[in-house]
Amino acid sequence: MAGKIFFSVSMSLDGFIAPESPNELMGRQWMELQQWVFQQRFFRENLKLGQGGEEGRDNDILRQTFERTGASVMGKRLFDAGEQAWPEEAPFHTPVFVVTHEKRDPWERPGGTVFHFVNDGIGSALEQARKAAGDRDVRIAGGGATIVQYLNAGLVDEFSLALSPVLFGAGIRLFEGVDANRIALEPIRAEPTQRVTHLTYAVRKR
Amino acid sequence: MAGKIFFSVSMSLDGFIAPESPNELMGRQWMELQQWVFQQRFFRENLKLGQGGEEGRDNDILRQTFERTGASVMGKRLFDAGEQAWPEEAPFHTPVFVVTHEKRDPWERPGGTVFHFVNDGIGSALEQARKAAGDRDVRIAGGGATIVQYLNAGLVDEFSLALSPVLFGAGIRLFEGVDANRIALEPIRAEPTQRVTHLTYAVRKR
Repeated sequence: MAGKIFFSVSMSLDGFIAPESPNELMGRQWMELQQWVFQQRFFRENLKLGQGGEEGRDNDILRQTFERTGASVMGKRLFDAGEQAWPEEAPFHTPVFVVTHEKRDPWERPGGTVFHFVNDGIGSALEQARKAAGDRDVRIAGGGATIVQYLNAGLVDEFSLALSPVLFGAGIRLFEGVDANRIALEPIRAEPTQRVTHLTYAVRKR
Repeated sequence: MAGKIFFSVSMSLDGFIAPESPNELMGRQWMELQQWVFQQRFFRENLKLGQGGEEGRDNDILRQTFERTGASVMGKRLFDAGEQAWPEEAPFHTPVFVVTHEKRDPWERPGGTVFHFVNDGIGSALEQARKAAGDRDVRIAGGGATIVQYLNAGLVDEFSLALSPVLFGAGIRLFEGVDANRIALEPIRAEPTQRVTHLTYAVRKR
């Protein structure tokens, strides 16, 4: 049985998932947006930051998102930002397919993450990710433009948002350029926790 | 005891509360956004559309929002759209203060709605609405630009969103132009219903 294609991001109440410039990644807004993640036991474990951290629904949801993921796909912009930010042992621990024009050999990291650079488009990257994922799901890791490309191509089965009580005012919008006339959403789950509201929707064609 | 200043709107998942043009108000997206309202018993009662309609949490929330409101404030653009759309017996049944440059005598409707046209700014309109509301709350009815003016002026105590499983792609954004650096949000309530997710936040100054 093939897995699902999904994405899962933290979104501000005004619809942003990242600041405009990667230089602002340590800025106030992005830190607040991701705050619920940094507190969790799974986040600390996965990045080898040591013991401790919260356990509870937020932690369970992070862990489940990780465990369901057999491979990830990401855009070049997210990869470039991450290449600077991820530790030596990148937090994916699966194959990751980077959609890019750059030709580059696979980049293997300790802990099982292997970045593959795909030059022939989002469909090809997804196909390779599906094969690598086996029975597990494929996560479209981001960024926003890549997620919208997959949404508009009808290639996303469902998505989850951690809606954070933060306003950005500017930055990268999750749904910028989405083809709203071709996409219908069906609510699957909504679960408020202490820090955010977790929302899951299935994506249907109109 | 003075009431609270609040707003309460239906928002699409990508942050829109209305189409760009009032001509699209009967369009597919806006109808889907407001669908949860049209089904409710209170909506039918209040607009004298006859018996029937759903009862449940969505209906309770609509009714509570109406009952807490002692007066409303709105922008001229919303008033202009509403003037065409509201029935003879407008659905407010309280004083409504319209922020506008137009000089016009108060406009009294059957059923207790009286529109007052305020020419000296949002602070004055709010002050008049506070007095008219007595112990009850003042609702900033909209549109988006008027809500953001009040938010940025630090004059909103709390707000509620009915987050709908709809994507607009374009239109009027709720938080367009918000001064994100001066506003902090504190989650008060989050309640998923069958149709939408009801979210309430208190507004704090940073």
